[in-house]
Amino acid sequence: MATKIKAGIIGGAGYTGGETIRLLLNHPDVDLVFVHSRSNAGNPIYTVHTDLLGDTSLTFSDNINQPVDVLFLCLGHGESKKFLEENSVPQNAKVIDLSQDFRLGASTSGRTFVYGLPELNREEIKSANNIANPGCFATALQLGLLPLAKVGKLSEVYTTGITGSTGAGQKLQETTHFTWRANNISAYKTLTHQHLLEINRSVKQLQPGYSGAINFVPWRGDFTRGIFVSSCITTEESLEALVKLYSEYYSGHPFTIVSNETIDLKHVINTNKCLIGLEKEGNKLVVHSAIDNLLKGASGQAVQNMNLLFGLAETAGLKLKSIVF
Amino acid sequence: MATKIKAGIIGGAGYTGGETIRLLLNHPDVDLVFVHSRSNAGNPIYTVHTDLLGDTSLTFSDNINQPVDVLFLCLGHGESKKFLEENSVPQNAKVIDLSQDFRLGASTSGRTFVYGLPELNREEIKSANNIANPGCFATALQLGLLPLAKVGKLSEVYTTGITGSTGAGQKLQETTHFTWRANNISAYKTLTHQHLLEINRSVKQLQPGYSGAINFVPWRGDFTRGIFVSSCITTEESLEALVKLYSEYYSGHPFTIVSNETIDLKHVINTNKCLIGLEKEGNKLVVHSAIDNLLKGASGQAVQNMNLLFGLAETAGLKLKSIVF
Amino acid sequence: MATKIKAGIIGGAGYTGGETIRLLLNHPDVDLVFVHSRSNAGNPIYTVHTDLLGDTSLTFSDNINQPVDVLFLCLGHGESKKFLEENSVPQNAKVIDLSQDFRLGASTSGRTFVYGLPELNREEIKSANNIANPGCFATALQLGLLPLAKVGKLSEVYTTGITGSTGAGQKLQETTHFTWRANNISAYKTLTHQHLLEINRSVKQLQPGYSGAINFVPWRGDFTRGIFVSSCITTEESLEALVKLYSEYYSGHPFTIVSNETIDLKHVINTNKCLIGLEKEGNKLVVHSAIDNLLKGASGQAVQNMNLLFGLAETAGLKLKSIVF
Amino acid sequence: MATKIKAGIIGGAGYTGGETIRLLLNHPDVDLVFVHSRSNAGNPIYTVHTDLLGDTSLTFSDNINQPVDVLFLCLGHGESKKFLEENSVPQNAKVIDLSQDFRLGASTSGRTFVYGLPELNREEIKSANNIANPGCFATALQLGLLPLAKVGKLSEVYTTGITGSTGAGQKLQETTHFTWRANNISAYKTLTHQHLLEINRSVKQLQPGYSGAINFVPWRGDFTRGIFVSSCITTEESLEALVKLYSEYYSGHPFTIVSNETIDLKHVINTNKCLIGLEKEGNKLVVHSAIDNLLKGASGQAVQNMNLLFGLAETAGLKLKSIVF
Repeated sequence: MATKIKAGIIGGAGYTGGETIRLLLNHPDVDLVFVHSRSNAGNPIYTVHTDLLGDTSLTFSDNINQPVDVLFLCLGHGESKKFLEENSVPQNAKVIDLSQDFRLGASTSGRTFVYGLPELNREEIKSANNIANPGCFATALQLGLLPLAKVGKLSEVYTTGITGSTGAGQKLQETTHFTWRANNISAYKTLTHQHLLEINRSVKQLQPGYSGAINFVPWRGDFTRGIFVSSCITTEESLEALVKLYSEYYSGHPFTIVSNETIDLKHVINTNKCLIGLEKEGNKLVVHSAIDNLLKGASGQAVQNMNLLFGLAETAGLKLKSIVF
Repeated sequence: MATKIKAGIIGGAGYTGGETIRLLLNHPDVDLVFVHSRSNAGNPIYTVHTDLLGDTSLTFSDNINQPVDVLFLCLGHGESKKFLEENSVPQNAKVIDLSQDFRLGASTSGRTFVYGLPELNREEIKSANNIANPGCFATALQLGLLPLAKVGKLSEVYTTGITGSTGAGQKLQETTHFTWRANNISAYKTLTHQHLLEINRSVKQLQPGYSGAINFVPWRGDFTRGIFVSSCITTEESLEALVKLYSEYYSGHPFTIVSNETIDLKHVINTNKCLIGLEKEGNKLVVHSAIDNLLKGASGQAVQNMNLLFGLAETAGLKLKSIVF
Repeated sequence: MATKIKAGIIGGAGYTGGETIRLLLNHPDVDLVFVHSRSNAGNPIYTVHTDLLGDTSLTFSDNINQPVDVLFLCLGHGESKKFLEENSVPQNAKVIDLSQDFRLGASTSGRTFVYGLPELNREEIKSANNIANPGCFATALQLGLLPLAKVGKLSEVYTTGITGSTGAGQKLQETTHFTWRANNISAYKTLTHQHLLEINRSVKQLQPGYSGAINFVPWRGDFTRGIFVSSCITTEESLEALVKLYSEYYSGHPFTIVSNETIDLKHVINTNKCLIGLEKEGNKLVVHSAIDNLLKGASGQAVQNMNLLFGLAETAGLKLKSIVF
Repeated sequence: MATKIKAGIIGGAGYTGGETIRLLLNHPDVDLVFVHSRSNAGNPIYTVHTDLLGDTSLTFSDNINQPVDVLFLCLGHGESKKFLEENSVPQNAKVIDLSQDFRLGASTSGRTFVYGLPELNREEIKSANNIANPGCFATALQLGLLPLAKVGKLSEVYTTGITGSTGAGQKLQETTHFTWRANNISAYKTLTHQHLLEINRSVKQLQPGYSGAINFVPWRGDFTRGIFVSSCITTEESLEALVKLYSEYYSGHPFTIVSNETIDLKHVINTNKCLIGLEKEGNKLVVHSAIDNLLKGASGQAVQNMNLLFGLAETAGLKLKSIVF
């Protein structure tokens, strides 16, 4: 490729900011022009993301007025909208927002956003200018449900999902205190998780008359990375037909894979993959899905969206070595 | 107490055998007469249960013909029945079997068994001679469902439960290899877990016409001890009424406690307690329950049953310091 | 026992306060009169130590003027001295201080303190009025070194020790963030840990001419409870002679046990025990020692000291079920 | 690059075999021709290394007679020598052996081996035909000691090191049972670890008169990947001079980095890096070093050696995204 894509990151000191930096530093087609952080401006990036010592001498910048082709917003919920309203981002720069601010269709400052789940909206993404990157639980749940919705056969869903501590961010909180979280399991936001809004929106995009409920019980797990979800759905379809349905739905999608074997959470950790496993007893289908919450659930999917926005190979910079063990 | 209860343990080298030893050594009303293990006969118990170094000089015995008041069978599934058929256990010795051999009502060698869930069958247990001790998942699930069944209002149930590695026993297996299990989550026996049989039996004991299904997805967790379960049930009862129902059901039961707060798995670890938490949105009730799989889910409940069999305080020897952190 | 010992706890909301509560609630000879916490006054203890739900209905009190026989100070370093100076504690109440304020021999308000390591000072403790309870790392290290010092043969020591996250307390800190600490190891206070002062003082009590150094590298471990320490020392004594020396030194001490087998950290967790293992190659002795930092390293040892102060059995209330797994 | 290097792997079903596959699949200059495994011949690689589902359709082969430029031997200790003696590997194929069979200088079948620690022997490696890849602990320890040995100033060393469970391999063993290893620490091979032989050999290569001892206490840690080592050495050099010495020694080596900050084990996990931290008190230097035992300690270093053997950039295929959290 003759010219590289110039990328900037807003909010580079948090978890998703750090992961986006790590991905872009190794991306063959991207030049990471700046990483913005007001509080860390002037300091080398490795002073915050200490694993990057030896990998880059880039420093945080407080200057956002550097010409880029794409801007990643790695900000807290509510802050992305504010950022776009308070700063004049050149209209020719594409925006990929990792917050939830635009996932339900809001627009701001002349920018309208496409919901960036490639397995749902790949064609729209390719021609979009602004992407609302999906939530982590939303990604894991939807990838387990969309093929059924596509054929209009999704009924009521009962889901339990478990997430690692990185889902709760960098802030010090009681629920991320090591002493509390180690060897522990607990439930939170029972049946009221905010990602249900975007999940329902996607389901209805494919199956407009969907009148069921998605009953979702999120759990906090005693690990750092990853989401594992099991959804139970009543259906008369045979397991064979369902495997075929799911496999065909995802056949052109490089990161979402229907497995014939038991799936393990840790096998997707440090990758951009989603593994899907299907099981059936009587008229009950159980769909298991597993992702890395910071990659397919955040920064990896953001880079995947960038690849689509700029006509690159969808997997460019995303063939990552899994942690496996 | 003038005379202590004489207890023997068959199969003392495994996890539940070890936990039963630990409990009986500290039990104020029990004299642990022998711990049987053919392969370890003659060796000090602390050579197998190395944490007991300094706590007891008892050795394993291969002689089961020592007079006892109660015999704990800590054997693998299928082996308890075989043991009772092949050995002449004096009829005046009561038997508490921790395997699944008699949970569904089978009898052998003139012994009939009462299903030993005190929160379901306390009065029957008090006058019983033989106890079939419930399974670990079965205990956690039932304690979340029984009050609703008692009033005939249990409908279809969707449950996900997660268990620690001790649930899989001492044997070396791929799914208990540290490298695989650390930081991992996986599903197994989806909708087909063997404990569903005893759970259904108990539900129908309280709600004979129950025609719903208990859809149960078990997960393997990356911790050693404990079971956490969330069950989702449709009901028109208010949360207030449900809390009242559950609290009253368990009011005389010292180990099962309805909490008004979020419950944590680790707060019951190393105790015989079951914590219950109730939440409701719309017409969906979610019941969370947490136990230590080796105590309330096995050896602790066995000792609780022994206490009931012999007219001791139900909590004797079971006021255990939790691990908390 | 006719009358129970009346105990009070100052600073009952932290980790060591909580563990002291748990021990005293189950102690057969103690009546826990009050648990002081200004910020939580009036609230049930189980609102802070949530695992105690169902175990006690005691509430936190802001009134310290309740007659007690013994007062446990579970305060931060520097706060115990301040507390004793600012409050008039009746002189007939014995004080057991878990902070480091009096470990090096300071006295205040007419109170002088005995260093409360029973394996070093048991007789002095029995007739003392005030106890300075040892530090956690200090306990683990000293128990590995004292027998050699007793016979005047301790030379330079090279020690590495690893501690669980509870050693860092309840406060939210970067080094106790789950995301950082899980699967991580790091060193801190290299060669400068504050417990070296009390360790050196004890060594010189037994071996006054000790001129060696104790080179101690502490590590932070990815677990919650426990300390494991390995100390390397040059000595011409044979392993046989050393095992004899250590075994005899600890023969009358119920909680410190010299093992002939490899020792495991987790086998002392949730107990008041210290396991000692000795190995030798050439002229190098390696002593491994393991304790639960919150029990033998803090609250358990405090209760052991209370038992000695009041002429109870040294193990009263301290025969705890280990977590084992 | 016009033609890619053709690579084969012998023993592709174990941990180091799997990691070598993962690295070579993404290596820009390598064509992975075959992965040999007798027991798995004919099966897709992802049936064993299940995280590779979707990444490769390569199958295991039982045919080793396929022309390659380089052969990786990922076999157990003792098996590499046997393999080379029993099979006719073409002399023009270079061999990189990950076992310990040739680390001390043995040769076989006309092949002599260079010890493949690039930070010690880079020039010799570049012109070598056969590489004996260093051990994992050996790599971590040596990288902490070599600069001092280079200037002839290494004296007696006291080291403690901790390793993850992957260091013990895939085989089911008591010490890799999850129930035992979780939350545990234990010592093994105290002062007798087999890697001491290769470490001593390297030290004497740089400091021929070295007469000190390397006293090494290895610990088993409760994590899967990584090695963290702290070595204590007496020296009169100032910390400033030592930092300069280490920094200069490693200045041209892309993977070994002297950090001015506290180093974290997890920051090197899933990378080929070694982080070095230096601290000094009085005349005692403590050197901390951290590596991923499967990458810089095994397969990553093997690929680094391959890069050197074939004149590629030393970092080709090894710019890996760290797991960080």
